[in-house]
Amino acid sequence: MNAEPSALHSLTRYPGRGGDRALLDEVLDEALVATLSTVVDGWPWSVPLVFARVGDDVIVHGSTGAGMLRHVAAGAAVTLTAFTVDGLVVSDTLFDHSVNYRAVVVRGVLETVDDPTAALTALTDRIIPGRSAETAPITKKEVAATIALRLPIVDGKWIAKSRSGGAGVETDGWTGVVPMRTVYDEPITDTGTVIPESVRHLAR
Amino acid sequence: MNAEPSALHSLTRYPGRGGDRALLDEVLDEALVATLSTVVDGWPWSVPLVFARVGDDVIVHGSTGAGMLRHVAAGAAVTLTAFTVDGLVVSDTLFDHSVNYRAVVVRGVLETVDDPTAALTALTDRIIPGRSAETAPITKKEVAATIALRLPIVDGKWIAKSRSGGAGVETDGWTGVVPMRTVYDEPITDTGTVIPESVRHLAR
Repeated sequence: MNAEPSALHSLTRYPGRGGDRALLDEVLDEALVATLSTVVDGWPWSVPLVFARVGDDVIVHGSTGAGMLRHVAAGAAVTLTAFTVDGLVVSDTLFDHSVNYRAVVVRGVLETVDDPTAALTALTDRIIPGRSAETAPITKKEVAATIALRLPIVDGKWIAKSRSGGAGVETDGWTGVVPMRTVYDEPITDTGTVIPESVRHLAR
Repeated sequence: MNAEPSALHSLTRYPGRGGDRALLDEVLDEALVATLSTVVDGWPWSVPLVFARVGDDVIVHGSTGAGMLRHVAAGAAVTLTAFTVDGLVVSDTLFDHSVNYRAVVVRGVLETVDDPTAALTALTDRIIPGRSAETAPITKKEVAATIALRLPIVDGKWIAKSRSGGAGVETDGWTGVVPMRTVYDEPITDTGTVIPESVRHLAR
């Protein structure tokens, strides 16, 4: 394999939309699902996965029975792409419509985590803050059935970019933005009666 | 390059979650942004892009100045991954928490569209239904500055899968689902006074 090409890993379009580490963390902490991509026998392969940032690592997990994760666990190069869609940008010219977004791509090689129990606990608490304190801990058998991997966040190996604001055209017609966001609806009870505090406190 | 490996392109985990063409179309028609991934000199490369399904094609576009799109336009193999996050699945055991989702991965090679104006118009109307009828049409100069590509949806070259429902554990504790959805907030006016009908009719 050749050295990693640098030309395609910088922002050639709209470099002003490039972001800093704070933007990277913001997107990784807000998006719940990322696309993990790798190369298998020269072909691109991708899968959406739940993930969580813990410090300078992105944690992903899956079953030991999943072929893809066994592949990437063995040291294959990956990209992890996550984004939020923040609004529709409306112009009065067709061409100048756009979408406001925040997006990141983290490149690297996945590594095995030192403490799978801690990683899996962090993953749950990232999605439902405080949930692990309310539940039975993960068992050794459950840990054994799971691959937990970390993608280190390394300087020069990630891109964060965003678009915000209006269409930026000069016109008398209507232009503007339709903001978008993700909301939680009321919890639907399956078993039991008392909705846990962590679930009641979820809010977007 | 070797023949495309088939082993990683079928559902080895939870085959019961595999979906049909209706699920594929549903996800492609609901998600606004997808992750396009390809291979550059043996390395994985990914970018999030606005997209639209038009019949049996997925349309993407970008500037002629974008290095990535020039690469994939030249016939590189790609994956296009799109998903919706539909809810948080809450168990009273840490291990059995999950996320309800609908997800698709379409594999193939991008092709140039025959009619870029039609493709770009369809892309806008997909995001804001009816918008093209209200706006100045795209100009020849604007079309010339744009690469519009289509990824044909070919049988055997895509996967659609989903998870729905509760945690499925037997317990007296609370388990359930916190539904999630994307909403539009009130349009924010940048210029002009009368919000277009297509924008007023947006609803999620």
